Amino acid sequence: MVVKYVYFFAEGKAEGNKDMKNLLGGKGANLHEMTALGIPVPPGFTISTEACVFYFKNGTFPPGLKEEVEANVRKLEKITGKVFGSVDNPLLVSVRSGARASMPGMMDTILNLGLNDQAVIGLAKKTGDERFAYDSYRRFIQMFADVVMGIDRGLFEERLRSKKAEAGVREDFELKAKDLKELCDEYKDIVKKVSGNMFPQDPFEQLWMAIESVFKSWNNKRAIEYRKLNRIPDDWGTAVNVQTMVFGNMGFDSATGVAFTRDPSTGEKTVYGEYLTNAQGEDVVAGIRTPKKLKELSREMPEAYKELLEIFDLLEKHYKDMMDIEFTIEKGKVYLLQTRVGKRSARAEVKIAYDMANEGLISREEAILRVDPRRLEQLLHPMIDPKADKVFITKGLPASPGAASGKVIFDSDEAADLSEAGEAVILVRDETSPDDIRGMARSRGILTARGGMTSHAAVVARGIGKPCVVGAEEIEVDYDEGLFRIRNIVVKKGDIITIDGATGDVFLGKVPTIEPELFTEFNDLLKWADEIRWIGVRANADTPQDAQRARRFGAEGIGLCRTEHMFFEGERIYAVQEMIIAKNKEEREKGLSKLLPMQREDFKGIFTAMDGYPVTIRLLDPPLHEFVPKTREQMEDLAKRTNTPIQDIALKSEALREANPMLGHRGCRLGIVYPEITEMQARAIFEAACECTKEGIKAIPEIMIPIVSIKGEFDNQKAIIDRVAKEVMSEKGVEVAYSVGTMIELPRACMTADKIAQSAEFFSFGTNDLTQTTFGFSRDDIGKFLPKYIEMGILKEDPFQVLDQEGVGALVRIGIEKGRSSRSDLKVGICGEHGGEPSSVEFCHRVGMDYVSCSPFRVPIARLAAAQAVVKDRNKRKRLPH
Amino acid sequence: MVVKYVYFFAEGKAEGNKDMKNLLGGKGANLHEMTALGIPVPPGFTISTEACVFYFKNGTFPPGLKEEVEANVRKLEKITGKVFGSVDNPLLVSVRSGARASMPGMMDTILNLGLNDQAVIGLAKKTGDERFAYDSYRRFIQMFADVVMGIDRGLFEERLRSKKAEAGVREDFELKAKDLKELCDEYKDIVKKVSGNMFPQDPFEQLWMAIESVFKSWNNKRAIEYRKLNRIPDDWGTAVNVQTMVFGNMGFDSATGVAFTRDPSTGEKTVYGEYLTNAQGEDVVAGIRTPKKLKELSREMPEAYKELLEIFDLLEKHYKDMMDIEFTIEKGKVYLLQTRVGKRSARAEVKIAYDMANEGLISREEAILRVDPRRLEQLLHPMIDPKADKVFITKGLPASPGAASGKVIFDSDEAADLSEAGEAVILVRDETSPDDIRGMARSRGILTARGGMTSHAAVVARGIGKPCVVGAEEIEVDYDEGLFRIRNIVVKKGDIITIDGATGDVFLGKVPTIEPELFTEFNDLLKWADEIRWIGVRANADTPQDAQRARRFGAEGIGLCRTEHMFFEGERIYAVQEMIIAKNKEEREKGLSKLLPMQREDFKGIFTAMDGYPVTIRLLDPPLHEFVPKTREQMEDLAKRTNTPIQDIALKSEALREANPMLGHRGCRLGIVYPEITEMQARAIFEAACECTKEGIKAIPEIMIPIVSIKGEFDNQKAIIDRVAKEVMSEKGVEVAYSVGTMIELPRACMTADKIAQSAEFFSFGTNDLTQTTFGFSRDDIGKFLPKYIEMGILKEDPFQVLDQEGVGALVRIGIEKGRSSRSDLKVGICGEHGGEPSSVEFCHRVGMDYVSCSPFRVPIARLAAAQAVVKDRNKRKRLPH
Repeated sequence: MVVKYVYFFAEGKAEGNKDMKNLLGGKGANLHEMTALGIPVPPGFTISTEACVFYFKNGTFPPGLKEEVEANVRKLEKITGKVFGSVDNPLLVSVRSGARASMPGMMDTILNLGLNDQAVIGLAKKTGDERFAYDSYRRFIQMFADVVMGIDRGLFEERLRSKKAEAGVREDFELKAKDLKELCDEYKDIVKKVSGNMFPQDPFEQLWMAIESVFKSWNNKRAIEYRKLNRIPDDWGTAVNVQTMVFGNMGFDSATGVAFTRDPSTGEKTVYGEYLTNAQGEDVVAGIRTPKKLKELSREMPEAYKELLEIFDLLEKHYKDMMDIEFTIEKGKVYLLQTRVGKRSARAEVKIAYDMANEGLISREEAILRVDPRRLEQLLHPMIDPKADKVFITKGLPASPGAASGKVIFDSDEAADLSEAGEAVILVRDETSPDDIRGMARSRGILTARGGMTSHAAVVARGIGKPCVVGAEEIEVDYDEGLFRIRNIVVKKGDIITIDGATGDVFLGKVPTIEPELFTEFNDLLKWADEIRWIGVRANADTPQDAQRARRFGAEGIGLCRTEHMFFEGERIYAVQEMIIAKNKEEREKGLSKLLPMQREDFKGIFTAMDGYPVTIRLLDPPLHEFVPKTREQMEDLAKRTNTPIQDIALKSEALREANPMLGHRGCRLGIVYPEITEMQARAIFEAACECTKEGIKAIPEIMIPIVSIKGEFDNQKAIIDRVAKEVMSEKGVEVAYSVGTMIELPRACMTADKIAQSAEFFSFGTNDLTQTTFGFSRDDIGKFLPKYIEMGILKEDPFQVLDQEGVGALVRIGIEKGRSSRSDLKVGICGEHGGEPSSVEFCHRVGMDYVSCSPFRVPIARLAAAQAVVKDRNKRKRLPH
Repeated sequence: MVVKYVYFFAEGKAEGNKDMKNLLGGKGANLHEMTALGIPVPPGFTISTEACVFYFKNGTFPPGLKEEVEANVRKLEKITGKVFGSVDNPLLVSVRSGARASMPGMMDTILNLGLNDQAVIGLAKKTGDERFAYDSYRRFIQMFADVVMGIDRGLFEERLRSKKAEAGVREDFELKAKDLKELCDEYKDIVKKVSGNMFPQDPFEQLWMAIESVFKSWNNKRAIEYRKLNRIPDDWGTAVNVQTMVFGNMGFDSATGVAFTRDPSTGEKTVYGEYLTNAQGEDVVAGIRTPKKLKELSREMPEAYKELLEIFDLLEKHYKDMMDIEFTIEKGKVYLLQTRVGKRSARAEVKIAYDMANEGLISREEAILRVDPRRLEQLLHPMIDPKADKVFITKGLPASPGAASGKVIFDSDEAADLSEAGEAVILVRDETSPDDIRGMARSRGILTARGGMTSHAAVVARGIGKPCVVGAEEIEVDYDEGLFRIRNIVVKKGDIITIDGATGDVFLGKVPTIEPELFTEFNDLLKWADEIRWIGVRANADTPQDAQRARRFGAEGIGLCRTEHMFFEGERIYAVQEMIIAKNKEEREKGLSKLLPMQREDFKGIFTAMDGYPVTIRLLDPPLHEFVPKTREQMEDLAKRTNTPIQDIALKSEALREANPMLGHRGCRLGIVYPEITEMQARAIFEAACECTKEGIKAIPEIMIPIVSIKGEFDNQKAIIDRVAKEVMSEKGVEVAYSVGTMIELPRACMTADKIAQSAEFFSFGTNDLTQTTFGFSRDDIGKFLPKYIEMGILKEDPFQVLDQEGVGALVRIGIEKGRSSRSDLKVGICGEHGGEPSSVEFCHRVGMDYVSCSPFRVPIARLAAAQAVVKDRNKRKRLPH
């Protein structure tokens, strides 16, 4: 079998097209595509990646390649009328790498190949510009020696400096043709001296050396590193593009530049680009001269400008996307050297997708697929002003996006107090605990030295939408001294810092930020998404304020209202503690009766904000010791308040201590041992719902029992709830429809979901705890090994951020299947951190959940991801044979 | 449809049989069976449980019952020639309850029914004993009034006392016929006065009242309580047995007694029982007279004795079991009033099963089924002498069987030192940690105030076979004062106590114990079990001593050798700590290199003890902080030893602290972050194996990687082990066959077992941790809710003791199926606590495991349970239609 390795493109005809990226690389495929579109592209050919793969497998070029390349060079000569090495009209080419995936700057490029002692004369003759010809030759020798022959470019630059000194000039362009000609000879001498070989004069020899060099560059250190970072397989190989040279440096009717078909920053449909007249591509990159805005070209070269605009239009209509391009104008004639889909800001991504749909270029479904939901997050929080000056001091994990500045405060209560007094505060802690909630909620942002992306600080911060950087390991907090250290930098209490929760960066002082806006296109795109998606999107919200925010972001209900977060608000914690240190049921009920009206008011506020939408309320979940005082001081305070001997409090506190609180006495296990807690919470919910109903507000409570692993646990708690519901409704004389369901967050709940669903009216997968128990990972402790796992590739992603579909997902599937096997109309949702993570939302759609629930700030992300899941599903079905 | 409610038995013919327990109750069914066997049973009839169920459902006797009962009474009259209420030859009957399950003493019995003012004359006439007749009447009135009419029996006893005083006598039997006759009249007056009704004279009225009373007694408080405790359904109802009276109190040729067909304590085939001449059954129970040994009957009534022995023989041949009986001899004639399978000691259970198989009464398979493996445990440990005087002070959970006495010591090191100096010590702690291993291993027994049946203390104690009582919650330990309190009792350091790990009892002072022996019959029965069972039985053993013990108990290999337990032995902990506080890999390797020779020697010892049997060695499992010093004193000691600033040690210790150590940095997660630990352990194993091989010992190492949840984790560790294996074998010039497998102890490992089995050569289910993660229960913290769960029936049993087949078992099934789907010859075992629990062993057999592994002391239990699983399987198959 004869394998074809070389693909030709020229004059409106091409052997390849844009869909042949695997074979021709990204750059090559698009050169073929543009050529076929009739766009002016310097003619050339592409050596396929298969040739490269063969080369690495066998250590030699594949048989037949030589002949194919030579035949293609002959075709080039024929089309251009130029000849390789000709002393009259020499053919010059560029040799560029181009892999499947973009690897910018990682591999080699050689320009002006084909120049030799003869051809340089031809070039001078043809262009009538001897200086240009020898300048080109000089550049070629240096580039070839450096890139292909591995000779230190410093030697050539040294020579160039000497030459300028000899000529008494300062700048390269001040050198005369004679100087450059001498330089060429001197460069060739350097090559001879260092390599022991003459600089190759045969253009074919040059070409083969260049091709081999491009192949080898696939395995240079930079490229390997880049592939590792970007998870690009090592066995893809690179293609090689050999293309006739065009010159943007042939005078003031020549130019070179880059452009985007729309503004990549704002998405506006406007001309956006830069160019340099009389320059080569490398000059733009080198930044020696300041490029001009592309608009100026309309004045300088109106014809070329017009042609470019037409090409932009053609490209967008053809590629149906915003493109970036490299172009060269040689003596007034426009050439495109590259095109690809343009990178853009998140904001531009949304606007371009929306606009293109409205322009009829793409469908609404395509527009929805065009936006990466992961990137939306940056649109929903304040951002560091990219133009601002900043003093970077350290970096942690980007736990909750948004930027914030404020005074460093180490104590949560102090942070809360100062915040209430109007100060901007950043709470800095080693790590946070539920005790810190008040301080966290009041501060502008949170910075911790320890903890991972799903540590307490990170989870709470995302929930309440506060900027947060965690695990900034360089930080050593010294609470006693009231300062923290980063290497030799000392930041004292009261000093101002700025954190960027989107990057993990920490800066000294106040850095200006930009406020985000939910612009029209974004809103409208999400409305399209809402029309397409099947799966509902709810929010996790614990307060009336959160609930209102959730509605503004489009949540269709609350999927998780954590009642315990209410326990920390203000003076409530005192009533909670009173309840906990109670010696018997009566005392405990006394403490609970103080909490009842507070919880009821919260629920009323939430029902009101969610008027007509369901509110899933989870009963008390964390172990009681999270609420009891830890320091001697706090214990003394509690002792005084409750008139209890401090020893009793210390003893109680000790008795509540647990070896593994995550697996301890929490969730429904509390409500079973202390049914009065469940009673109080149920009463607060139903009293609130009844009162709302009387006021004309439609309250739809869904009561959720946490940490169920046994049907009997659920039945026990449901019986209490149903009894209290009956009592309250009869007291209030109002009927309120409600349902009772459970969190599914333990493997046993999944395995026995058929049993549990006999009693439970809905399931909400708590994938945070389910991930912890399925992997046996404590999310507070994974910092010691998870980063290593990801670095070593044992795990691709942090399973607390991206749902582990293989393991945890398999349990979720079993849970849903079993659950619906005994209750076909079982409502199923998710309320773990994953509910706002795009690939996890897609999974939830695929396994047939009814809704996802996530923090309010992630609601737009979930709405979009849910719509994408539907579109991808449809597209997949279209591709399947019928 | 006419329902039959009454079943007749008399003269060798019976309408029922022993398999009709559901209908006739246990007692009734056996009366029918014995009658049909030709054993002399006083004729009678049984009213079925269905009649009782009807009565409770409808509040009336079922239609037709009246006629059926009357017809059966007429049959009785015909057969006996006696007539109900006859003044010449009256028919007297007993009316007794009898449910499906034995409920001793919970329900009612009425004797001598049928006596009235006429019949008593007939009885006197017939027996020629007026005194006897009126004594019987007097007893009947009192019993009937008390049981049926609810009249306080105290009133009658008061009258009896007065009568004795009037007659000037002290004992009942000194009363004359005249006195008794008067007493009957006075008793009837009491009845009239209290109830307002005459004492019923119509025998049929008496009978119906008695039957109704027996029915009602099914729902008396005692019976309900008993059923609740023994989980007997409330809707079974009781049968009623109406039977002709026979009298053991008709003179010195009459007697009454109870007997066992073999010695229920030792199992010896010897006459065992007691009797009283001239007495009724209630006299034996009342304990007024001391009964005689049954052997004496051979002298007193040789004929009757001979007949009894023949009946014993007949019963055993028929029932094929050791039976207990109640008998009465009336004027030399033997009657059996009851028989049932006799209760027996664990020792007797084994011996009787073994003997009966040898006698050909039952097959070996049946013999194996006859022994409850749960009861064997008491045969394998020293026991409290039941005859000893003891001062009980408190009770905890029976964590590890066996009894032990010794001085109370609170500090583990002190306990170890004193023990080594020859003192008997009981280690008393709030709870234990791995630090305490040395003290635990050296002490005679362990007592803790906290923790459940699977707390650290309990698990370790069972593993090393030490008596242990945990969770004795009344105990308040005061380490500072060196004492513990139980209510107002103070036990000081050095005081002697005795603990009974089989019951949880704690006694003051030294209580004598009995040493167990592994008697021949037990050994032989286990050998039969070995022939029958399919599944292998291994032991969990961490030291050469444990390994030897395991072999003695019949283990066929080691299923779990925990390398970390070795780390606490003697000075080793210093090397371990050195390794942990190391600042870099080099320092860590220095610490490890000190451990290497120690571990190697251990492994050599274990391989030697297990010569030719496989040894599964688990690599380091617990989190490192378990090994670091906790107190200031210990830290200072370590600082001095290692020449490290104490602050560094404190910092390291703090850095190792984890929120949920159970889900933290442990198992293979350690070996991945610190590969040098895995390397050292692998090296120690292979060096030991190679050296053993050279010495002619067959070492079969199976290396087990703990806490795997991702295939990549396993692959990472296996690569290290394989590399080290190659290195060591090449160094030593010996080849040793080995395999590398993994613990399956996390739900994710089960769900992805197909992936993991691509690399792993064996699976060992770690059902302790799998239960923790599946339920989300920390076994150190379940004390706060699990007892409540069991009390409320939310869980039937502690899932850490009895494998939860529904949830955890379902994951195990998935794990095995998936594992074998990618490696069909995958070896599968279990090494959790469940490996020695009979119902769990049965489960392991059913799901197709290759072996179970448990603590050495449980090996015999597992051997038997494994054989029972096979037999039950076969029997089930026999019962299935072909």
